[in-house]
Amino acid sequence: MRVPFDELQAVLAAALRKAGMTGDRASLCARLFAEASRDGVASHGLNRFPRFMRMAARGLVDVHAAPALVAAHGALERWDGRRGPGNLNAHASMARAIALSRLHGVGCVALANTNHWMRGGSYGWQAAEAGVIGVCWTNTLANMPPWGAADPRLGNNPLVIAVPRGDGHLVLDGAMSQFSVGALTSYAARGEPLPVDGGHDAAGALTRDPQAILDSRRLLPIGFWKGSGLSLMLDVIAAALSGGRATHEISTDPEGETDLSQVFLAIDPALVPAGDLDRIANAVVDSVQRGDGDVRYPGERTLATRIESLREGVLVDEAIWREVSDQLARP
Amino acid sequence: MRVPFDELQAVLAAALRKAGMTGDRASLCARLFAEASRDGVASHGLNRFPRFMRMAARGLVDVHAAPALVAAHGALERWDGRRGPGNLNAHASMARAIALSRLHGVGCVALANTNHWMRGGSYGWQAAEAGVIGVCWTNTLANMPPWGAADPRLGNNPLVIAVPRGDGHLVLDGAMSQFSVGALTSYAARGEPLPVDGGHDAAGALTRDPQAILDSRRLLPIGFWKGSGLSLMLDVIAAALSGGRATHEISTDPEGETDLSQVFLAIDPALVPAGDLDRIANAVVDSVQRGDGDVRYPGERTLATRIESLREGVLVDEAIWREVSDQLARP
Repeated sequence: MRVPFDELQAVLAAALRKAGMTGDRASLCARLFAEASRDGVASHGLNRFPRFMRMAARGLVDVHAAPALVAAHGALERWDGRRGPGNLNAHASMARAIALSRLHGVGCVALANTNHWMRGGSYGWQAAEAGVIGVCWTNTLANMPPWGAADPRLGNNPLVIAVPRGDGHLVLDGAMSQFSVGALTSYAARGEPLPVDGGHDAAGALTRDPQAILDSRRLLPIGFWKGSGLSLMLDVIAAALSGGRATHEISTDPEGETDLSQVFLAIDPALVPAGDLDRIANAVVDSVQRGDGDVRYPGERTLATRIESLREGVLVDEAIWREVSDQLARP
Repeated sequence: MRVPFDELQAVLAAALRKAGMTGDRASLCARLFAEASRDGVASHGLNRFPRFMRMAARGLVDVHAAPALVAAHGALERWDGRRGPGNLNAHASMARAIALSRLHGVGCVALANTNHWMRGGSYGWQAAEAGVIGVCWTNTLANMPPWGAADPRLGNNPLVIAVPRGDGHLVLDGAMSQFSVGALTSYAARGEPLPVDGGHDAAGALTRDPQAILDSRRLLPIGFWKGSGLSLMLDVIAAALSGGRATHEISTDPEGETDLSQVFLAIDPALVPAGDLDRIANAVVDSVQRGDGDVRYPGERTLATRIESLREGVLVDEAIWREVSDQLARP
């Protein structure tokens, strides 16, 4: 079913306020959840909201906590997320990186002790909407075997890269596994095979069977050894710069995944002559889309889904929507 | 055959001086070529040297040119490479990014109008040896189809990420294609199949046949659509920040590939408490290598090859070594 975006956001905000979150924070937290669903990433939007509320009820997410500055060196800052809501912490950190980039050309915030940031792309769109280049990543619980091994010892550590553009921002948002756990679950639920190999089955053979990969827990890194190495580097940098936990120190219980480490980098293109960023980005996109085939630029599908959602309502899972609405109605 | 590292470096330096490069620049340029071969990347070491000399003779590489500062905004600078030697330009740019990071915590140099940087990993090792985190990338000529199309419109834009560590720096150096053109050529010359799919053949089927991919020019991006998107983002950022050319503006003749755009980013971990970077990096590497399988950390194989080369001499292609040595002997 479809629900108007404003209604989705309002219901989530009311649920957050009922859980004790204060006014503006509840509005922003609800907006980030609602925007994820609006943009086609329900797995980190409404569908993830009940787990967020359970983790808040258990105290793993502190709805009142805001990040605190720990150390600063010019354009580089270390912040403690104090187990606050992951999307609010990430939004505040990217905002700080953007502010630092206005002063220094580049800004970098490393954030420790935070919670799942939900849709990573949110902070890429945030940077692009502020007119700056944004790069950010998070570590995760161990959910991907390193190349050469069979058991999950790496996170799939999503990486986000964003470039502002008048005619649709370029926003890349991707895990270091070929498919996220959410994507595998969706394919399995629909009974569809993956379009390309997504992991190894229990016997060690490459497979397009999403359930076989969920069972074996052998997600494939993008580019095999390359994504495995990338994931390791992202984890080391996030943990070391922030002083927070690395993947091997994070609980492997999905309901207990907390104390994550993240990095937010912003580059203010103020020294790029006016108009050049748009001109160059447009020319690259055009050069890639001209000719044979159907080639999308990063962010293109997101924008199309957003426009559809705002026109026709946001697609929601009916059972989850009722669950959230019903809980709100209870005293 | 194997040649002592010092001899390799001395011969290359003499050849560069004969071509008009001045003393210290010739020494550094030769060292970077020799180190690539020493570290097991002969394709961007000695094997690439004759092409470099041809491009210098044709004036595409100006052996006398050094980068010039174009614009600065705090920790972010734009430099013009003036078609100087790619490895010298890249080394100078990473050195400048490192210096900026000492001042500002983070430093970023965007470089336009440069030449092929040879082994990208060189500038990762450079950052790590200076005790800073380094990230850099380059665009390239179009050599990889974007996901969804069949003809090459993206570069494979190598990305380098480095973290300093007492017990062996972590240095990732990888193209956005599953295999570099050099790797495909090596597999084809040995008559070996690729260990995983590396591209599409002319009929559009995924294949492990290196020659079929060299013929079709359909290299596979790492992670399919993911590497395709990553490559596009790296190209846009490099061209826009530097004001240089994007992939679609670069000659597709390998002997005419010039005017590349690159980005060099350094993060000084001065606010990380002493010892923490090593402790965290060691723990992550240990967590990934403990248990089943044979798991390498990024840079591990490079270091092993380096030690072997310094002990037993650097492996060189005999024909190329004679070609370079003979040209030096001529008046």
